[in-house]
Amino acid sequence: MKLAIDAMGGDNAPEAIVKGAMLAAKEIKGLELTLIGDEEQIKPHLNGQSNIEVLHTTEMITSEDEPVRAVRRKKNASMVLMAQEVKEGRADGCISAGNTGALMSAGLFIVGRMNGVDRPALSPTLPTQDGKGFLMLDVGANVDAKPEHLLQYAVIGSIYAEHVRQIDKPRVGLLNVGTEDGKGSDLTKKAFQLMQDAPIHFVGNVEARDLLDGVADVVVTDGFTGNIALKTLEGTALAMFSMMKKTFMSSFKTKIAAGLVKNDLRGLRDQLDYSEYGGAGLFGLAAPVIKAHGSSNDRAIYNAIKQACQIVEFNVTETIQGTLDEMQAEEEK
Amino acid sequence: MKLAIDAMGGDNAPEAIVKGAMLAAKEIKGLELTLIGDEEQIKPHLNGQSNIEVLHTTEMITSEDEPVRAVRRKKNASMVLMAQEVKEGRADGCISAGNTGALMSAGLFIVGRMNGVDRPALSPTLPTQDGKGFLMLDVGANVDAKPEHLLQYAVIGSIYAEHVRQIDKPRVGLLNVGTEDGKGSDLTKKAFQLMQDAPIHFVGNVEARDLLDGVADVVVTDGFTGNIALKTLEGTALAMFSMMKKTFMSSFKTKIAAGLVKNDLRGLRDQLDYSEYGGAGLFGLAAPVIKAHGSSNDRAIYNAIKQACQIVEFNVTETIQGTLDEMQAEEEK
Repeated sequence: MKLAIDAMGGDNAPEAIVKGAMLAAKEIKGLELTLIGDEEQIKPHLNGQSNIEVLHTTEMITSEDEPVRAVRRKKNASMVLMAQEVKEGRADGCISAGNTGALMSAGLFIVGRMNGVDRPALSPTLPTQDGKGFLMLDVGANVDAKPEHLLQYAVIGSIYAEHVRQIDKPRVGLLNVGTEDGKGSDLTKKAFQLMQDAPIHFVGNVEARDLLDGVADVVVTDGFTGNIALKTLEGTALAMFSMMKKTFMSSFKTKIAAGLVKNDLRGLRDQLDYSEYGGAGLFGLAAPVIKAHGSSNDRAIYNAIKQACQIVEFNVTETIQGTLDEMQAEEEK
Repeated sequence: MKLAIDAMGGDNAPEAIVKGAMLAAKEIKGLELTLIGDEEQIKPHLNGQSNIEVLHTTEMITSEDEPVRAVRRKKNASMVLMAQEVKEGRADGCISAGNTGALMSAGLFIVGRMNGVDRPALSPTLPTQDGKGFLMLDVGANVDAKPEHLLQYAVIGSIYAEHVRQIDKPRVGLLNVGTEDGKGSDLTKKAFQLMQDAPIHFVGNVEARDLLDGVADVVVTDGFTGNIALKTLEGTALAMFSMMKKTFMSSFKTKIAAGLVKNDLRGLRDQLDYSEYGGAGLFGLAAPVIKAHGSSNDRAIYNAIKQACQIVEFNVTETIQGTLDEMQAEEEK
């Protein structure tokens, strides 16, 4: 198995990317990696592992670049070359911690969509209180989704959860403003109908309040709503940690308490750190494309690489394609 | 000033409602209250204050009732009679902690809309880290909003923030998936254009991640997205408190720490308790209608009553109506 990695994307590139790649190349059997980026910056972090090669380029896409334009114009950017490796069959999948919008564009325009998928979905695995986590899609690839898109997300998410996250009969829920059938916007009402007839274990509408309690293994929503939910979750958690810190620093007594629980609270923080679950998959593309978090450290990069390996190893793309084809055939009957 | 209060709505009715009403009737000068509900259940909690009267009815709308049907059929329900008091001019505004959907229906069908407002918005004041709070609207009254609706929310929210929350030149933001101009869904792109030309201090797009940091005084969004954001915020905060509690109970050492910071952490919890800011206004109606949180205690009811008083006292409804009329006239030129 061979994966292409954008060595220049993310806040800690290239060091964290190269180190994560070395860890993966060492731990995962039969894995070959191509690191794409500035050789001069990459080489110092490499220790001569034979299953890592470097594809040199100095051009890169920054977080300030306008996504579509950057992918079209910066033809030698590390991210663009990474997607080319997949397109031309030299890699089975790819990983980048760079500009999310640009990665979506590179995925869409260079790697290409699966047959029958209208719009790919960005799909992170988010934390739950019990540590199992849930898959949410879409969190922003497609901000004006149609009911048919949500149906496709449901099927794609269910297959991913079953094969990669190894959840038997994953519970698929539709994010909505209430749990009762018939609730919601025009979009969710129509999607609900479609999801009821899909080859998934559909558990109906789920509420945002219950996400961290693990109300479903796969939560389906449009890219606009999913993005708002994800960022509200992140923002609330960060704000609470910051308020907690202030509380602990407020007096002598609380500082003593802080010393006593510091390690345990760090555990709480880690529990909410979703880079442990790997990156966000760009689902619906012809090959695995993984978006690692922009602030990824080497551990997060390692997890994202492992995730791409699992998608390849368990034939997830082929299984999704097969199911969508069957649904299409069923509909045409 | 006279307000009508649904004494039978909410988890702690009628006791918390009656006690909150008594507090308000004692503290707020010139206030008269009508408590609507079962006299037998209400009377034991009253202490004979002269500015509170009781309008007796035994019918009530429960949280399980289907909103529109309940308001149409239960003609003597405490919530319906409460709205009638306003409609028939015997009260200047009303407050209920009962079924949110039913209150929206009662507001819409009985109290009625302002001229020129297509759809009312449900609008709580949510907490920020600095304790100032922000107004978010809509959080669920209208799940299929159009750009014009968001424009109206922006104007209504701005006037409310200025007059009731006494914020000079309130910053109005549009909740979106990115801060750059031109970001977002069809809906937010069109709303952005309209809001740029509105008589408000528009600060552009704001991200969900920054809500608790107080990125705007008024955050405008459609009812579907707003509902998801609100419930994600609540759910994340609750989950974190629960995880924190588990952390503190996990060992002897952490239990000692818990004892040391218990009161301070309670302060953190209070800081996130948005019932301190009053209830959620149903804005765009011909008179103030306030939805108090279902789990309101007497203090929260008191705050909701105070909020309704301020809306009446500062002529907020009239000011909003005047501004909308001017905008309408401007457009017709």
